[in-house]
Amino acid sequence: MADVLVLGCGLIGTSIGLALSQADQDVLLHDEQPQRVAVASSRAAGRAWEGAEAATLVVVAVPPAQTGAVLAEAQRLRLAQTYTHVSSVQSLVQADVERLSCDLSSIVGGHPLAGREVSGPRAAEAALFLGRPWAVCPSPESAAASVEAVRQLARACGAEPVDVTIEVHDRSVALLSHLPHVASSALAGLLTAAVDAERPGDRGVRFDLSGPGLVDSTRLAAGDPALWTQILAANAQHVAPAVRALAEALGAFAQHLEALPASTASGAITELLALGQRGRDLVPVKRGRAAADFATVGVDVDDRPGRLAALLTAAGEVGINVEDVHVEHVPGRPRGVIELLVRADAVDALSTALAAADWRVRPTT
Amino acid sequence: MADVLVLGCGLIGTSIGLALSQADQDVLLHDEQPQRVAVASSRAAGRAWEGAEAATLVVVAVPPAQTGAVLAEAQRLRLAQTYTHVSSVQSLVQADVERLSCDLSSIVGGHPLAGREVSGPRAAEAALFLGRPWAVCPSPESAAASVEAVRQLARACGAEPVDVTIEVHDRSVALLSHLPHVASSALAGLLTAAVDAERPGDRGVRFDLSGPGLVDSTRLAAGDPALWTQILAANAQHVAPAVRALAEALGAFAQHLEALPASTASGAITELLALGQRGRDLVPVKRGRAAADFATVGVDVDDRPGRLAALLTAAGEVGINVEDVHVEHVPGRPRGVIELLVRADAVDALSTALAAADWRVRPTT
Repeated sequence: MADVLVLGCGLIGTSIGLALSQADQDVLLHDEQPQRVAVASSRAAGRAWEGAEAATLVVVAVPPAQTGAVLAEAQRLRLAQTYTHVSSVQSLVQADVERLSCDLSSIVGGHPLAGREVSGPRAAEAALFLGRPWAVCPSPESAAASVEAVRQLARACGAEPVDVTIEVHDRSVALLSHLPHVASSALAGLLTAAVDAERPGDRGVRFDLSGPGLVDSTRLAAGDPALWTQILAANAQHVAPAVRALAEALGAFAQHLEALPASTASGAITELLALGQRGRDLVPVKRGRAAADFATVGVDVDDRPGRLAALLTAAGEVGINVEDVHVEHVPGRPRGVIELLVRADAVDALSTALAAADWRVRPTT
Repeated sequence: MADVLVLGCGLIGTSIGLALSQADQDVLLHDEQPQRVAVASSRAAGRAWEGAEAATLVVVAVPPAQTGAVLAEAQRLRLAQTYTHVSSVQSLVQADVERLSCDLSSIVGGHPLAGREVSGPRAAEAALFLGRPWAVCPSPESAAASVEAVRQLARACGAEPVDVTIEVHDRSVALLSHLPHVASSALAGLLTAAVDAERPGDRGVRFDLSGPGLVDSTRLAAGDPALWTQILAANAQHVAPAVRALAEALGAFAQHLEALPASTASGAITELLALGQRGRDLVPVKRGRAAADFATVGVDVDDRPGRLAALLTAAGEVGINVEDVHVEHVPGRPRGVIELLVRADAVDALSTALAAADWRVRPTT
């Protein structure tokens, strides 16, 4: 009996196969398209399933709409002791397996919060889940041993299991992932509309006056519209009210802006902005840590090649972990200002050490 | 006669003084608060103005609401040939100088698109404007020589002058800067509201299920509410309709999501997402270049110290400019996946070179 049978050799399924195979587990692979199995097994993600062999765990990695049916069929064939899946929306799958009269005790939903803007077994990577959260979403009927088996799967892939109910999972990703995507799309869509509305030679909006804030705010809008329609539709129960709430919050902003220069309007705008500032502090900028736990150290650098590498080497030499790097936008090359994200309590030490090594550290006040 | 008289020694005024002084210009400094002049001059941003000496150019760097009055007073005292300012909203200042019967031919508005989330002369930096756009906003009455003097100021500070009318400037920053700020605040505000609505132990939203998209989408919300209220209020004429349009776009998204599973609703959602995807491609991710001109190369790295520095060194050795760096979020240290932003036409060369040097380059398909 194999350790794991992966049903569905797309990006996620094949990446799971790669991660588990590298951890010396015996992995079986199956897909309705044989060439996807061929690609996955040629990449050493596991061996092709012949249609009979059972495994300790079945992982269904097909699109959300088909997941429930595949789980039911796998159970009917008694292919494993525990059955899990990787759907980005959990309630849809749970409703399907209940409707299909599955044995609910051996089914535990999962959702690795990792992905790429590409798909298929060729894009798969063993490291895809490294350090990422992996939601483990039991139903009330799930057996404790099955829940533990899914947690072990997450750990074996290098992820961090996060126990969460189906309801809280779907509500959380609606607010934390699906809503930001819609907000980014709507904002970017206004840019398209502004350009389309221009007459030739009119130059109504000058994009060369934009900065890094616009880049960050519109990044999610680059995602594939068809894929995101599926995701939003599957979680519409939670996404729709969140999008409605955002529309209303922006409507309130607009109303107060329209009521200016009334001083009550000005005060209301400040309150809304302050609410947002508090919300930002809730956002984990690194796994498990809120934005308030981190701070940036800015360093002015000249345009000699290799300065970014040298700066990071210098930071490493004083033993401070640089969590992220941001290069300020200067044409053609990595120069200007480099921002290093570090733990807030390391800012002083890093600034002092870099300044002592003749780096031009920006004042932090 | 000095080259430049800076009226207002905050972050922007002092940074201008520093940049010009480093370019060997003779800079005079003035502020209503003498200690700010003392700080600025002690940092070699220029010399204190004694109240009489004239200059070729006056730069007014005080808050937008006071800018018009300071320009008028400087003109009354005949302190310069050309007068400019640095207000983030241009029409407000223009209305003020018209109302105050200024000589409009010698006044040309300016707006360096640079800043920090800190203020005051201690936070000033000579490099603040390096490579940044600097809007040059003449009125119809501005003399050609005055316009050229402001362009020269921008270049002397290391910025790139961008000629734009007052109207187009204010409309552009409303859409490209002020609207994203409001969107980020409204989104982050919903996070606060979601947490506030929770009962103790309820755990209605699990922030540990969030990812980098939420971090990017809420970054602007960290800005100072009082400062941003001023900016939004000064440009309310353009910001209010933009925010209203965004509220309506999100209202349309919500309406279609609520109408699901109707297939027409699904199609409408895909269309809105596609509109956003086109909008994203309009956003310059580096000065003057749209997102479509760049692509990322992902590299899996292990957790040994200095790998980020070594990777950048390796990229530099093959002569490819790394425009920006993003470290994927893995706990505690810069490991996991490093994404290098490069010109789209350099992706193949960089991937090949790094793979040949035994870096684990992620597939790009």
